[in-house]
Amino acid sequence: MAPQRKSSKRSAPSMYDVARLAGVSQTTVSFVVNDVPNTNILPETRDRVWAAVKELDWQPNAIARGLRSARSHTIGLISDEIATSSHAGKIIQGAQDAAWAGNNMLLVINTDGKHDIERAAMKMMVERRVEGLIYATMYHRTVAPAIDLAQVHIVLLDCFVADRSLPSVVPDEVQGARTAVELLLQKGHRRIGFINEVGPLPAMFGRLEGYQQALASYGVPFEPELVRTGTVIATEGYRCALDLLTLPERPTALFCYNDSVAMGAYDAIRQLGLTIPSDVAVVGFDNLEVIATQLRPTLTTMELPHYAMGQWAVQYLLDHAQDGEFAPVQQTIPCRLVERASA
Amino acid sequence: MAPQRKSSKRSAPSMYDVARLAGVSQTTVSFVVNDVPNTNILPETRDRVWAAVKELDWQPNAIARGLRSARSHTIGLISDEIATSSHAGKIIQGAQDAAWAGNNMLLVINTDGKHDIERAAMKMMVERRVEGLIYATMYHRTVAPAIDLAQVHIVLLDCFVADRSLPSVVPDEVQGARTAVELLLQKGHRRIGFINEVGPLPAMFGRLEGYQQALASYGVPFEPELVRTGTVIATEGYRCALDLLTLPERPTALFCYNDSVAMGAYDAIRQLGLTIPSDVAVVGFDNLEVIATQLRPTLTTMELPHYAMGQWAVQYLLDHAQDGEFAPVQQTIPCRLVERASA
Repeated sequence: MAPQRKSSKRSAPSMYDVARLAGVSQTTVSFVVNDVPNTNILPETRDRVWAAVKELDWQPNAIARGLRSARSHTIGLISDEIATSSHAGKIIQGAQDAAWAGNNMLLVINTDGKHDIERAAMKMMVERRVEGLIYATMYHRTVAPAIDLAQVHIVLLDCFVADRSLPSVVPDEVQGARTAVELLLQKGHRRIGFINEVGPLPAMFGRLEGYQQALASYGVPFEPELVRTGTVIATEGYRCALDLLTLPERPTALFCYNDSVAMGAYDAIRQLGLTIPSDVAVVGFDNLEVIATQLRPTLTTMELPHYAMGQWAVQYLLDHAQDGEFAPVQQTIPCRLVERASA
Repeated sequence: MAPQRKSSKRSAPSMYDVARLAGVSQTTVSFVVNDVPNTNILPETRDRVWAAVKELDWQPNAIARGLRSARSHTIGLISDEIATSSHAGKIIQGAQDAAWAGNNMLLVINTDGKHDIERAAMKMMVERRVEGLIYATMYHRTVAPAIDLAQVHIVLLDCFVADRSLPSVVPDEVQGARTAVELLLQKGHRRIGFINEVGPLPAMFGRLEGYQQALASYGVPFEPELVRTGTVIATEGYRCALDLLTLPERPTALFCYNDSVAMGAYDAIRQLGLTIPSDVAVVGFDNLEVIATQLRPTLTTMELPHYAMGQWAVQYLLDHAQDGEFAPVQQTIPCRLVERASA
C-alpha cells in the first residue's frame, strides 16, 4: 500500500476566510454578496469584500449556498453504466442510503464510459462543489479516470488505479469463491466443477485462487480438468456444464462464475435428466435477484457487496472530506453467501 | 386531453432583464456581479445592478453560469427506483443519449419513492436551474408528484397524473399485447393462454384489451378460462402455466405478462415433457435481456419502449423549454416485437 498522505484539497475558502481577509464580519460579507438593502455598508467596505471574494477565488455559485452552510451536502457518483445496467444498481442504493443518513443528496451521472462525457461530468460535479466523488464501474477492474485531483476528493468503487494511489473499495473475490466452495465441501462434495470467466480480470484470478484455497483446506487435490472457462453468458454456462457433467467421473457440484452461467448450467443438468441439488448442486455468484430468486430451484449464490461498497464509499468521503486525512486505502469487502435451494 | 395552455414559467429573468431594469449594459452587469477590477463603475451603478438582481430574483448560483450562457445545459431525472432496479435502466440510457446529443448533461437522483427525498431532490434540481425535469417511475402507473410547477418544466415518464394536466410519455400497452398475440395468431395458434398481472394497473387492463382485440381481428372467440392472473414472478408463471396446460383442451401458445412469468412458464412446459416452441409457443413482455436472451430457447418478447421514452422526454423538454409552449401532451410509444426462438 502507498504511504498515507495529507491532502490540502479542503483548503477551499469559506465565508470566514473572506471576512477575515476583508477585515469585516461574516454578516457583512453576507450582506454585501446578497446586496441586502439598508445596511449602511460603505462602498469602500463593499469593494474590500468583493476584492477578498476574488482574491480567495470564492466561487459565485458557492456564495448562495455558503450563506446557509459551508457544505454542499451533495455526493457525486459518476459511473460507466451501473445506472443503466441490471447488474449493479445496489451500488447506488447503498450510496444513497448512506448519503441520506447524513442528510446528503446523491447526484448520479452515467457516462457509458465515454471519456468526453466523463470529463464534462467531473467538471459539473466540481462546479457543484460536491463533498466528494465516487467513481464506480460495473465490474471489478483497473481504471484510469481523468480526474483533477486538486479539485475534489474521490473514492473508486469496484475498480482501482494500477498504482493504488487512490482510495478504492472492491469485492473480496478470493473470500467469495472460497466461501462458495467451502459450502459445497461441507455438504460432502469432493468433485466440484468450476466454470470460470475467460477474461483476465481480478474476479477471474481471485475466484480461481479462492476455489483452490477451499479445496486445499479440505485436502482435496486441485484437478485442472474440473475448471472450464467461457464468456459469462448462459449458453457458455450450458456448454461448460455439459462438458463437465459428461466427464468419465462426473462432478457432483458446480461452482459458477455468475448467475447467468448458473442459469445455463441448470439447462444442461435438466437436459441430462439430472436433478438439482440431489444429483448436481449448483452455486452461482452475483445474487442477481431477477435470476437467482426466479430459477427453479432457486439459486444459492454469493452476493457481490454492491450495497456495502456504495455505503463504504460515501462514508469514507463524509468521514474524511472535512478532516483532510485522505489516504489511498485499498478496502475489500466480503461477499455474503445467500443460501437458497440449489446446493 | 386537457386543453393546451401556455406556460409563463420561462419568464425566469435573464441577464438582459437585469441590465434593462438597472439601466446599464449586460457587460456592466457582468462586471459588477463578477467584481471585475478597474472597470470604473460607480458605486451607485453597482448598487443599481444589485438592486435589479434582487428585484428580479436573479439567483446568485445562476450568475456564474449566466455569464457564459443563459442555459444550464442540464436535464434532471428524478426516479423512484429505475437507477437501482434491473428493470428500466434503458430509460436513463435513452434520456442521456438524447441529452448528450444536444450537449446537455443528465443528472439523476433516485428517491426510492421517499417523499422527503423527492422534495429535496426537486429543490436541488430547481436550484441548479435544470432546463427541465423528467419524473420517471419503474412501472406504468398514476403519480402525484410534489412539484412546484412555477419553478420548472416537467415531463412524466412511464407515469401520469390522474387529471392528465402534465405532459406524459407511457408505453402503448394495448398495441404491445395486440402485436404479441397477433404474432401467435399469424403462426396458426388459435388457443392462446394469457398469464396476466393480478393488480389493477394500466398494463394489466391495456394488455387484456390488446389480447382481446387481436383475437377479435382473427375471429377467435374470447374464452375467459384462458386468462389466468398472478403476481408477476416466475413461480406464479409456473403455477398459471401448469393450470393452463392441463386444461382438457390444451393451449398451444402462452402470452406472458412479463419475462419472469415466461421464465416460470418454461419450467412448467419442460416439466410436462413439452417442447418450446413446437408444442407450446411462448411470448413474454419487457425484453429484460438478462432473462430473455439467456433462456433456452431464447425468448420472443415485446420490448417496453424504455429507451424511446427517455429520448422522447428529453427531446420534449429541450424543444419546449425555450419557447414556453408547454402543453400537457399525453404521448404513448409503441412496444417493439423482439423475435427470438420461443414462438
